[in-house]
Amino acid sequence: MENNLSVFYGLSFLTAALAFAFAVYLYLWVKRQQVQNARIKEISMLIKEGANTFMIREYKILAIFAGAAAALIFLLLPSPIWQGSFTANLSMALSYLAGTILSAIAGKIGILVATLSNARTAQSAQQGLKPAFLVGFRGGAVMGLLVVGCSLLGVAAVLMITGDSSILLGFSFGASSLALFAKAGGGIFTKTADVAADLTGKVELGIDEDDPRNPAVIADNVGDNVGDVAGMGADLFDSNVAAMASALVIAQSLTGGAYANVSMVFCYAILGLLASILGIATAKVGKDGNPTRALNSSTYVTTGIFLALTALATLALPGFSWRIWGASATGLLVGVIIGIATDYFTDDTKPIVGRVARASSSGPAFTVLSGVSYGLISALPAMAGIALSALVAYQLCAPMGQGYAIFGISMAAVGMLSIVGMIISNDAYGPIVDNARGLAEMGGLGEQTIRIADELDSAGNTVKAVTKGFSIGAAGLTVISLLGAFMAEVNVALEAAGKALITGFDIMSPTVFFGILTGAAIPAVFSAMLILGVDRNAQRMVAEIHRQFREIPGLREGKPGARPQYSQCIDIATSGALKELISAGMTAILATVAVGLIGGPLAIGGFLLGNIVSGLLLALFMSNAGGLWDNAKKYIESGNAGGKGSPAHKAAVIGDTVGDPFKDTAGPSINTQITVVSLVASLLSSLFVAFSFFG
Amino acid sequence: MENNLSVFYGLSFLTAALAFAFAVYLYLWVKRQQVQNARIKEISMLIKEGANTFMIREYKILAIFAGAAAALIFLLLPSPIWQGSFTANLSMALSYLAGTILSAIAGKIGILVATLSNARTAQSAQQGLKPAFLVGFRGGAVMGLLVVGCSLLGVAAVLMITGDSSILLGFSFGASSLALFAKAGGGIFTKTADVAADLTGKVELGIDEDDPRNPAVIADNVGDNVGDVAGMGADLFDSNVAAMASALVIAQSLTGGAYANVSMVFCYAILGLLASILGIATAKVGKDGNPTRALNSSTYVTTGIFLALTALATLALPGFSWRIWGASATGLLVGVIIGIATDYFTDDTKPIVGRVARASSSGPAFTVLSGVSYGLISALPAMAGIALSALVAYQLCAPMGQGYAIFGISMAAVGMLSIVGMIISNDAYGPIVDNARGLAEMGGLGEQTIRIADELDSAGNTVKAVTKGFSIGAAGLTVISLLGAFMAEVNVALEAAGKALITGFDIMSPTVFFGILTGAAIPAVFSAMLILGVDRNAQRMVAEIHRQFREIPGLREGKPGARPQYSQCIDIATSGALKELISAGMTAILATVAVGLIGGPLAIGGFLLGNIVSGLLLALFMSNAGGLWDNAKKYIESGNAGGKGSPAHKAAVIGDTVGDPFKDTAGPSINTQITVVSLVASLLSSLFVAFSFFG
Repeated sequence: MENNLSVFYGLSFLTAALAFAFAVYLYLWVKRQQVQNARIKEISMLIKEGANTFMIREYKILAIFAGAAAALIFLLLPSPIWQGSFTANLSMALSYLAGTILSAIAGKIGILVATLSNARTAQSAQQGLKPAFLVGFRGGAVMGLLVVGCSLLGVAAVLMITGDSSILLGFSFGASSLALFAKAGGGIFTKTADVAADLTGKVELGIDEDDPRNPAVIADNVGDNVGDVAGMGADLFDSNVAAMASALVIAQSLTGGAYANVSMVFCYAILGLLASILGIATAKVGKDGNPTRALNSSTYVTTGIFLALTALATLALPGFSWRIWGASATGLLVGVIIGIATDYFTDDTKPIVGRVARASSSGPAFTVLSGVSYGLISALPAMAGIALSALVAYQLCAPMGQGYAIFGISMAAVGMLSIVGMIISNDAYGPIVDNARGLAEMGGLGEQTIRIADELDSAGNTVKAVTKGFSIGAAGLTVISLLGAFMAEVNVALEAAGKALITGFDIMSPTVFFGILTGAAIPAVFSAMLILGVDRNAQRMVAEIHRQFREIPGLREGKPGARPQYSQCIDIATSGALKELISAGMTAILATVAVGLIGGPLAIGGFLLGNIVSGLLLALFMSNAGGLWDNAKKYIESGNAGGKGSPAHKAAVIGDTVGDPFKDTAGPSINTQITVVSLVASLLSSLFVAFSFFG
Repeated sequence: MENNLSVFYGLSFLTAALAFAFAVYLYLWVKRQQVQNARIKEISMLIKEGANTFMIREYKILAIFAGAAAALIFLLLPSPIWQGSFTANLSMALSYLAGTILSAIAGKIGILVATLSNARTAQSAQQGLKPAFLVGFRGGAVMGLLVVGCSLLGVAAVLMITGDSSILLGFSFGASSLALFAKAGGGIFTKTADVAADLTGKVELGIDEDDPRNPAVIADNVGDNVGDVAGMGADLFDSNVAAMASALVIAQSLTGGAYANVSMVFCYAILGLLASILGIATAKVGKDGNPTRALNSSTYVTTGIFLALTALATLALPGFSWRIWGASATGLLVGVIIGIATDYFTDDTKPIVGRVARASSSGPAFTVLSGVSYGLISALPAMAGIALSALVAYQLCAPMGQGYAIFGISMAAVGMLSIVGMIISNDAYGPIVDNARGLAEMGGLGEQTIRIADELDSAGNTVKAVTKGFSIGAAGLTVISLLGAFMAEVNVALEAAGKALITGFDIMSPTVFFGILTGAAIPAVFSAMLILGVDRNAQRMVAEIHRQFREIPGLREGKPGARPQYSQCIDIATSGALKELISAGMTAILATVAVGLIGGPLAIGGFLLGNIVSGLLLALFMSNAGGLWDNAKKYIESGNAGGKGSPAHKAAVIGDTVGDPFKDTAGPSINTQITVVSLVASLLSSLFVAFSFFG
């Protein structure tokens, strides 16, 4: 059986290499496209430089953080080093660093390609929709392939070298601590710039959104890249690694057929990546000229290929079970269903957007109230879907024996994330064509080109709802399996300490209950701190913009030669974002440690549950309400409920401003916060077993 | 021991009678105060009639609902009547009806006294602050005494007659189904009128809030009474009954010393009511002329007396345990702490209100964002407090034996609610002096009187934060003990069916987990439906006001003799409120039944937990954010951050409008929704044991 596993390690490396090779091919293909327009070249260079400024600053701070965390891990995990666990601790610390480094590389290259693709997409739009779509999509696909390739490579390498799946939790923690910074930091950055640019440009001066006089305008464009491309990529890298890591931890803890189960995890991940490669290679706009359909149909193609390939593998390979295949397929299908439900609440061709638009006629309070209400309601289908898929996966796999039920749930998460390469490609396509639209306008490429860019952009927005639902759903299932991984880790520590094992976390135990209630409050506090951080940071940037208008002669009037200092704004967004997110992130981590020291492992089990429950609720609420307000505004702007400039439009703009940090900062960061907290809990489980006040 | 219990039944009736006698005395005292001003007499009569219109309409619908529910209970509960349980089913149905009737009586009389007291408080304010305070406070105290007297009487009578504490769950369900209507219906009513009056009066016509030309103005005043007096009274009646009922169910299930434990529940309730009577009797404004201090110090006096009396009882009576006393004292102290934390986030002398006011200078989106953020953060101390008190109560009582730990938690809830008579008096004082302020202005009682009424009103607002925190905290603890009661009921049903008993609800069981996630979504959906209901209903009333301005000659211009049809607006608010709340309430109840039929008792255990967790989070968030926005607006109006009429003020008014249905409709109704769902689950436990799809 050991040999069998080596085959899967080999195949994992081979598939990852294939993904990298394909990514290099696409990168070179994108790079071959020409940009003639000088203005576009210049602005796209400014965006690229701004993104690099942010990434370098971020990675410098992260290097310090990761170094300190690695040192702590080396000293303390999996058990204190003075208890003679030198090799295990070194492996854990190194695998943590590997997780951060691979995540950083994927983010950096993703940004590089995205900032390369935006100008080329704008330019290609002059030749028509089909070639422009290809440039935008392939630019995004480089990110998708890299992220999935890195996660498969990393997980396989760490497990092959150490043979111990609990070391994988260190790798996963590295990925998720970086994702927390990338997602929350990028989220604060992008909304800081967006809000400050709007307040000073649109509101105070009455100039256009992309007017180059505004010192915040480049920061705003940079924000799309660092928030949506790098942040989202790091988030899904993290989810993917966490799903594989927790499935592997549970697989290794199963008695009987453990190696077949470990192989199964790798096999599903390999086939998911192969399916994504095929989906990406065949994606193109069909005869109907509809880019939304092109994106969605390549997702469905990938889904179909994955289901077929895994069915074949189950048929052919010994020890592979149809029950596990069913669990994994359930996860994938629920992901698609969540996406459709999200779409219902945020798509302007469905009734909800129109209702919020009409409510806006009574004033902004009604925009906010109706958006909040539908946002809250929208959480129900996704939460019920996640819950049902967990239930079905459990029922399918429970007959396989002790521990298989929770393994089934973790395989549902792996299934949902199997096509993540395709999902990231679709998602990264969004900011690329969004930037391309701005560049086409600023570069004066003409009405026809802008119309094409608009169409590409609109497809990106529509597909985004589906991918966001997917990533929240995947995080939900992953964290359930992380809860299983946590219990497995705790029991290892309890066994080592000669204490009685935990069989579960009973709600009726007030220690568990204590954890649940405090855990439920943390995502609320975390997201509130991020929103307040955006607000504070935007005020700083507004002050800087006012200074530039005051001190740079001719800037406000737009005299030739009077150029704003774009980099100052980028600097403020960068340093403020990092400052604000560190306090929010540390709050979540320290609360975990505090609850563990008060209530021990039982309280932490409850804490993780509370965190998942309220985190899912708030993430779905904030993401969907934000998307809903955004689309209600656009719906009014396209001539409904009074149209642009009407009282309803003014109200909808206020709703959109409320929704911005909801959907782009707080909402999507909650996922990562949950994963980080789960991993901190798993890593510190032996500490909580050793010391706790009530535990 | 049986004899011992009879003594406590006797004492319960005696104390309830004492409370009623004291209430009658206070009622007659309030009635003796004179109202000379004809205008005040007239308006207060209109408010009284409006409140009666609502109450009669509400009670008519409720009578149908209660009759149908009683018939269903008679047929099905505690077990299907065709299984030969005629007497038990009849007792359950009758005790359900008794619960609804006592709640209705308390609500009706409370409204009667409140509408009697408001005019008399206004008139007394001409003699000075001290006499006016007494009138307002004693008017509120009638409600407080009635509610607690009725709950003690009802619980003691049902248990004495049937001897079976599970029949008490029927009584408690009667109380909570009425509370759901009173609280949510009253909440929709009051905000419908408030929003419609503001939209047409302040915004469209630019007339004053209390201008008698506005057809919605009386409905607005009626709303204060039906929402705050009757609704809040029904809510706390419900919480109090539920806390006692669940403590008694658990006490009866304990092996050994069960009768001493049952006696203890009654003893604590009796002493709490006595302490409240003493606190009410001694409440008056001291030499410093500070009504806030008068209200708070009488709360502290009541708390002190209760702790002393229960300590004496523990010392004197056999079988009474210091551990239980400690649990109960912990509950009470945590209630006070939650109140203080709430105060920190909503009081304008503390920093948060000022921050929201200053954020408003950047526009309404920032009012909303900062209010949402601090509202989310404010949930942490209360949730951690509830969790810690449950943990401490558990640790204290666990050494007493099997089942005592959860009994300790239920006694913490009884302790927190022991001084509920005092809490309701303080809370009902609020709308009375609020109305009195309006009457003093409309009756032209002069500057000095209005200033006094203002001071009384402001004290009411400040104290309200504390009482609201108290009632949410109490509901939280109560529902934990209802979860214990649910498990006890399920085990009775399982034993009867010859199946294995449940020992707890393990998070790691996906059946439980399925329940948790769906349960967590329900308070979100429920509160969203109420908020959307307010919005829809306000639109209906706005249309009616426009009709009146169009069709009644001279009304808009304020010609003498042109009188609006106030009752039309009251009718719309009434029928709309009842219509909207029925769909929201039924959604919560049907979801419970659906989850029970899908997943059985384990799923329902999880469902209740999810419901508590997200319900507490949303209730605290909505109540506190609403209070915060309200006070931020008032803070600006008193000259800060630009003062009245500034952009910050306009933004704060929008924030306040968002907050209105948050804090007065959805937030406070969530408590009741949780209790109703918990009781439905307990009552249907044998159904879920008998049939379920995955269970």
